[in-house]
Amino acid sequence: KTYRIAVIPGDGIGKEVVPAAIEVLNKAAQLDGSFEFEWTTFPWGCDYYLETGKMMPDNGIEILKDYDQIFLGAVGMPDLVPDHISLWGLLIKIRREMKQSINVRPAKLLQGLPSPLRNPNGFDFVVVRENSEGEYAESGGRIHSGQDEIAIQNAIFTRKGTERAMRYAFEMAKTRRQHVTSATKSNGITYSMPFWDEVFAQVGKDYENIGQVSNHIDALAAFLVMKPDNFDVIVASNLFGDILTDLGGAIMGSIGIAPAANLNIERQYPSMFEPVHGSAPDIAGQGIANPLGQIWTGKMMLDFLGYHELGTSVLNAIEATLAQGVKTADLGGTATLRDVTDTVLYYLK
Amino acid sequence: KTYRIAVIPGDGIGKEVVPAAIEVLNKAAQLDGSFEFEWTTFPWGCDYYLETGKMMPDNGIEILKDYDQIFLGAVGMPDLVPDHISLWGLLIKIRREMKQSINVRPAKLLQGLPSPLRNPNGFDFVVVRENSEGEYAESGGRIHSGQDEIAIQNAIFTRKGTERAMRYAFEMAKTRRQHVTSATKSNGITYSMPFWDEVFAQVGKDYENIGQVSNHIDALAAFLVMKPDNFDVIVASNLFGDILTDLGGAIMGSIGIAPAANLNIERQYPSMFEPVHGSAPDIAGQGIANPLGQIWTGKMMLDFLGYHELGTSVLNAIEATLAQGVKTADLGGTATLRDVTDTVLYYLK
Ligand SMILES: CC(C)[C@H](C(=O)O)[C@@H](O)C(=O)O
Ligand SMILES: CC(C)[C@H](C(=O)O)[C@@H](O)C(=O)O
Repeated sequence: KTYRIAVIPGDGIGKEVVPAAIEVLNKAAQLDGSFEFEWTTFPWGCDYYLETGKMMPDNGIEILKDYDQIFLGAVGMPDLVPDHISLWGLLIKIRREMKQSINVRPAKLLQGLPSPLRNPNGFDFVVVRENSEGEYAESGGRIHSGQDEIAIQNAIFTRKGTERAMRYAFEMAKTRRQHVTSATKSNGITYSMPFWDEVFAQVGKDYENIGQVSNHIDALAAFLVMKPDNFDVIVASNLFGDILTDLGGAIMGSIGIAPAANLNIERQYPSMFEPVHGSAPDIAGQGIANPLGQIWTGKMMLDFLGYHELGTSVLNAIEATLAQGVKTADLGGTATLRDVTDTVLYYLK
Repeated sequence: KTYRIAVIPGDGIGKEVVPAAIEVLNKAAQLDGSFEFEWTTFPWGCDYYLETGKMMPDNGIEILKDYDQIFLGAVGMPDLVPDHISLWGLLIKIRREMKQSINVRPAKLLQGLPSPLRNPNGFDFVVVRENSEGEYAESGGRIHSGQDEIAIQNAIFTRKGTERAMRYAFEMAKTRRQHVTSATKSNGITYSMPFWDEVFAQVGKDYENIGQVSNHIDALAAFLVMKPDNFDVIVASNLFGDILTDLGGAIMGSIGIAPAANLNIERQYPSMFEPVHGSAPDIAGQGIANPLGQIWTGKMMLDFLGYHELGTSVLNAIEATLAQGVKTADLGGTATLRDVTDTVLYYLK
């Protein structure tokens, strides 16, 4: 079996870490023997924008629909292209148009990667982030100018989108430690969040054997620092999920290794695998970027394709590499991107 | 000079920690000798609601306007009274109707209180939270029902409210380490947050000598874990400020000691001094609650009244108490509320 993958390295270190992760994924496929990857690279991103005035061609979305999955590096060069152009013209555009309505982001204490927390207690949780609506709705406007100006932003929560994220979280909890925490703020935000809570209570009724609790986002953020091992699956709105997953990266010891998957769970269009970190233009092109976030993201693609054992092998190889102290500068080490990639390849069995 | 203070102990441990903090504030006034406090207690809160159907009397706001300041404990008994009644009927009602549009919340590594971070590096920052509008606007609604239901929440940002919070932050930075960080999310939230950024850039022009930077809220939350000592003053919207200040409490070692001030900076109505922690009904009435958050909040009231040196003495007494290991159970100690209060009184010089 051949999986046709659309590769968008994007900007900055994306161009370096994506090829490294592809090497690892190719080796994983070889080890398995039952399938292979066919990679097609698209040079879309900020350089493309500076040449053509577009982040991707007009028929970019149509082109991508022909592929099984999308493997993306990082998007953004804020000094050259404003974020609202680069992100909404590529990253968020693909998330929306491919209906990748669920963003899954695990956070797990890894051997060899010291957490900034004194007692991380072996935390291991997954954030299921609603990825298509909520606070990121492109809805709002302004009125008046000068001292009287007012800006309004509409957050839009649909029953369908909210329920979909919650069901996905409960189903995931079944395969894990049987517990879902809902991130809310219904004590302060009085229309969207009470709705969120109602849907959570209703969906929860279908999962009587799964533990379920709601925490306000302020307390939940604090809990990730104080007792991160309390969590199994966290379901969160688009904005709250965004915040909690960066915190997840931080307590792991680096946002640079945090993986993510933008899933079209109906499998009607390709999903997109894209790490949490950004394009880090300041260190791009020097061969010192950390490929582990991209490689771990590749592991999530293997999982989504059904190769769970192989995915676990990749994560084990990442952990063995860290445990050996083979780390790039962002993790306090002296290894190059090449060293780290080679070490992961070595441990991948 | 006599300051007339309206005291609302509120619910749960509020009824215990408020009297303890009043003892400390009375001693501070004695030490100073130039002023005294006159305390008038109002039994408003959830018990009052269960008796009368209201969190405070109809003319409660009018009554409070006669006082110089308000000293509040904690509000909420979610098992007995829904949050939207208890909070919006008292806490948020006072914030809004008294135009307490700025919420100031410091976070500082204290001697004797171990941070959950391995390298807290002596962080010391203040969050200036917009306290009257933004994501907490009571604006929104629903349409359709069942599977088609949609909830809309409107976040409303005015130039006046946004600019007021930012100017307050810049003025505060002048008296501190000359740096302001703005919490934004303009890469994902496309109407309110670009407006927020514009106002920050404009206000910033009046403060050329103050360092100024914008961070997206996801990265900023992560930075509070990874390098909290990078921050001096952080200015944030209502929601972002709420999240960042609970995180501030968490990295201090406990939300139980985090103080807060809801300020009417125009001094046209009383301000309200209220710690970050909640009513903790599970441990209420046992004499084991931690009074330090309420006492530190009292220090903020002294500051706001102009007694900065006295405020510093109170904070020093808190720190000396912690350094002596006199701590309540929530901080891992065995001291009672009485022990902690007596120790603070002892060290207050
Ligand atoms: C109780 C709640 C409405 C409140 C808020 O979000 O403002 C609290 O979290 C706080 O920070 O004072
Ligand atoms: C770049 C930005 C729009 C994006 C988001 O907020 O979704 C990023 O922070 C992420 O988490 O993937």
